[in-house]
Amino acid sequence: MGASLLHAAVTLLWLAATTGFLDPTRRDQLMRQEASRQTGGGVALTPAEQRLDNRLHRMKVHEMEAKPFPPSIHFFKAKKLIRDSPIFKLLQDMPKGGALHIHSSSLVSAEWLVKNATYRPNCYVCFTWDNSVRFVFSQQQPYPRWDCFYWQLLSTLRAKVADQSAFDASLLKYLTLVTDDPDGEYPNQDVVWDKFEKTFIAAEGLISHAPVMKDYLLEGLSELHRDNVMYLELRSQLARTYELDGTIHDRIWTLRIFQDVTRKFVADHPDFVGARMILSVHRASSASKVKAAVEEALALRREFPDVVAGFDLVGREDRGSPLWYFRDALSLPARRGLDLPYFFHAGETDKEGTETDQNVLDALLFNASRIGHGYALAHHPLAKEISRLGQVAVEVCPISNQVLKLVSDLRNHPAAVLMSEGHPLVISSDDPSMLGTTGLSYDFYQAFVGIGGLRANVGTLKELALNSIRFSSLPPNLKDAAKVVWQKKWDSFVSAHS
Amino acid sequence: MGASLLHAAVTLLWLAATTGFLDPTRRDQLMRQEASRQTGGGVALTPAEQRLDNRLHRMKVHEMEAKPFPPSIHFFKAKKLIRDSPIFKLLQDMPKGGALHIHSSSLVSAEWLVKNATYRPNCYVCFTWDNSVRFVFSQQQPYPRWDCFYWQLLSTLRAKVADQSAFDASLLKYLTLVTDDPDGEYPNQDVVWDKFEKTFIAAEGLISHAPVMKDYLLEGLSELHRDNVMYLELRSQLARTYELDGTIHDRIWTLRIFQDVTRKFVADHPDFVGARMILSVHRASSASKVKAAVEEALALRREFPDVVAGFDLVGREDRGSPLWYFRDALSLPARRGLDLPYFFHAGETDKEGTETDQNVLDALLFNASRIGHGYALAHHPLAKEISRLGQVAVEVCPISNQVLKLVSDLRNHPAAVLMSEGHPLVISSDDPSMLGTTGLSYDFYQAFVGIGGLRANVGTLKELALNSIRFSSLPPNLKDAAKVVWQKKWDSFVSAHS
Repeated sequence: MGASLLHAAVTLLWLAATTGFLDPTRRDQLMRQEASRQTGGGVALTPAEQRLDNRLHRMKVHEMEAKPFPPSIHFFKAKKLIRDSPIFKLLQDMPKGGALHIHSSSLVSAEWLVKNATYRPNCYVCFTWDNSVRFVFSQQQPYPRWDCFYWQLLSTLRAKVADQSAFDASLLKYLTLVTDDPDGEYPNQDVVWDKFEKTFIAAEGLISHAPVMKDYLLEGLSELHRDNVMYLELRSQLARTYELDGTIHDRIWTLRIFQDVTRKFVADHPDFVGARMILSVHRASSASKVKAAVEEALALRREFPDVVAGFDLVGREDRGSPLWYFRDALSLPARRGLDLPYFFHAGETDKEGTETDQNVLDALLFNASRIGHGYALAHHPLAKEISRLGQVAVEVCPISNQVLKLVSDLRNHPAAVLMSEGHPLVISSDDPSMLGTTGLSYDFYQAFVGIGGLRANVGTLKELALNSIRFSSLPPNLKDAAKVVWQKKWDSFVSAHS
Repeated sequence: MGASLLHAAVTLLWLAATTGFLDPTRRDQLMRQEASRQTGGGVALTPAEQRLDNRLHRMKVHEMEAKPFPPSIHFFKAKKLIRDSPIFKLLQDMPKGGALHIHSSSLVSAEWLVKNATYRPNCYVCFTWDNSVRFVFSQQQPYPRWDCFYWQLLSTLRAKVADQSAFDASLLKYLTLVTDDPDGEYPNQDVVWDKFEKTFIAAEGLISHAPVMKDYLLEGLSELHRDNVMYLELRSQLARTYELDGTIHDRIWTLRIFQDVTRKFVADHPDFVGARMILSVHRASSASKVKAAVEEALALRREFPDVVAGFDLVGREDRGSPLWYFRDALSLPARRGLDLPYFFHAGETDKEGTETDQNVLDALLFNASRIGHGYALAHHPLAKEISRLGQVAVEVCPISNQVLKLVSDLRNHPAAVLMSEGHPLVISSDDPSMLGTTGLSYDFYQAFVGIGGLRANVGTLKELALNSIRFSSLPPNLKDAAKVVWQKKWDSFVSAHS
């Protein structure tokens, strides 16, 4: 086994080192040995990649001297600095592989929702007492609801307001967490999660309108593609959608639309390899509801094997039930000898030692294929080893963790530990709409410059991108095909920038 | 080798687990196996310790629900909350072993400096243009200096001011970093380090007055003893001291005084086992100055083997030269076949991948006995293994790291990773004066409640306290004697609180 050999080697090196510490060659060996363990540390660089690496290193040294250093401050304040960063521009051009952790209600930039969806005819808005909004498309004045009494036709309202762009900006504020004063506005996790959940509810009325849904999914794929992302695994609770006349489509309709839109997009963009869904249910649900969701996921996976990648539980982990509470439901596929890959959110918490914190180990016991966030994994040594041995990759979403107040300075993100050890991991964006990002480049920037520090290099970037194919749910033949497409794009990226 | 066996066991358990994940017994085994790895995870608790542990666990659950959770906010804001915490009160009573990482210029509470030292006759003060102060004891009006033109006799000045306690509070502000608005006052590391260095200079004029020095060292030991700390290793640059008549004592005088004061204190307090010094030089010094300091340390260790524990380089790591720069000086003892234990500050940085960051590996290559801070160690996997194999303990100083802006929420302190793996570590307070703490209880609180989370238990506390004896520089016979004294105190602590 590799690990024990490594341990023995370390002992020897250590003994040798302590008697021969003046030898610069031995020191270099140790430094190289340590560097070789990090993500991408085993990647051999071509001469062109080496040139790019030298460039990137110089850019990073320069960037680390900047005050403030963007990854050390809140993303909402850093965003402008990041957009101006030459490293960021380079990362935008880089083929980043797949986005494996994005939620369907937060896939598309909120600007699109405001500028496109809310400008469609028959769109009504209602401002709620708790400082949120609801949208609905309707042929006639919508009925008052418990949470919304006074509905206004948006086109009429817009005609009345003097400053339309200010009005649109105000709508935008309901649909994202973005603010100039994140520390003041979100003093703690409860407040930011409360607002976070409200933005989901606000967006829902727009997205679940069937015609919007089609365009929304298409726009989502386009935004990823524009950011040089070639594949998507989308967590979705499969909302039911509605037509203007009140017709309600069942959840399978959404799955079919997703399949259609993806097929069409792939046909139009041969360098985009596809999109799949991870069916999800809220972790605040009852055990019986989760059981029904598992049953449904099994059925839908049988019916749509190309689309349904697996299953997950979503929502704020500290508030919902832990995975172990749902053990009866989650062990159902195995008891029946059926296969349902799990992609559990686990350890998106800083409450060390609680039941929630225990989710990282339980996710592995339930044989998860990947772990969402795994923020707590770094201080679960056994779970970490199991995850590594089983190559259960961690989906790291740096900006989400910062905005949701798990960590302020991203250099302290626990993925720094995982990255230094070459733990299997991928970078994703979680909720681009709500977090004010698009594609994966912002999160790659934070992972590469902040979490990875000066040590992260072109090999790291290459491995992170390839990991997103390797650890995707794609079948082996499609993985191979995706790698070929990616390599071609990578080569031209390297030659353009080296 | 233990580690490889462990790895194999993990693999087996993992394989077993994935086919038998519904078995709660197996899950419990895994959870227990993981918990057994943490600091104190192997400590078998007596029935009384178990009762204390149950109490502490309930107190911690309660404390974790508090908003704000003290370890998650800046210590200067949390201090009041911590003082009211029943866990803190318990930790004050706990015999904590030794304080292995404290700097001599910041040993005693600043209140003592103001209330005692500045009230002595012949104390002059001068307010500098850069918002600092200088003190000097003198029989006549001190001469103007480049940094201080206008010296005032403090007793005269105090007679003039209306509100003496407000005046004393204003003096206190020059001698500590404490402020109600740490985020506003210290926007970044440079600003806080600048102020930090000024407080050292301000205190120096008081402490280096020979009569104050004697009382200061005695007060330092007393404060530790009152906080149930029984041993001290003090980092000191061995300031030269002065008498009122202008006589200057050489540095050996300070060493002798330290020895005398300690002997007397130990004689008066049989449950205090002693104090030693780690001779230090500033890392901004030239290579030749460091070499001279190493030579001097070797000589003083020969002359005062009971007092001189070893050698270190101090000052802001990011600004001084890296250890490797001083390789010629640092390898001098080994080249001569002499023994000079090293207790290097290493990795007190968040600049991953820089030369400073490399200090953690170099400290080990230079055969360090312990590592000061080691903040960067968690993402140096090879250095971490060497440190573990060689039992090179890390001196964790949580409050210092937070105040000096390496981390804001102490739950994200990298020692959480080390603690979960049972890495050899001790807790210390770095600079009690400047940080507004006294003894070790505040830092133990942060380590136990913040860094350790719900998982840290009585076994953790016991191991941390015992570690401070085990990893001290005391010879084996004195370690054994110290353990006997500690165990007696521990037993009565446990029986009083269980």
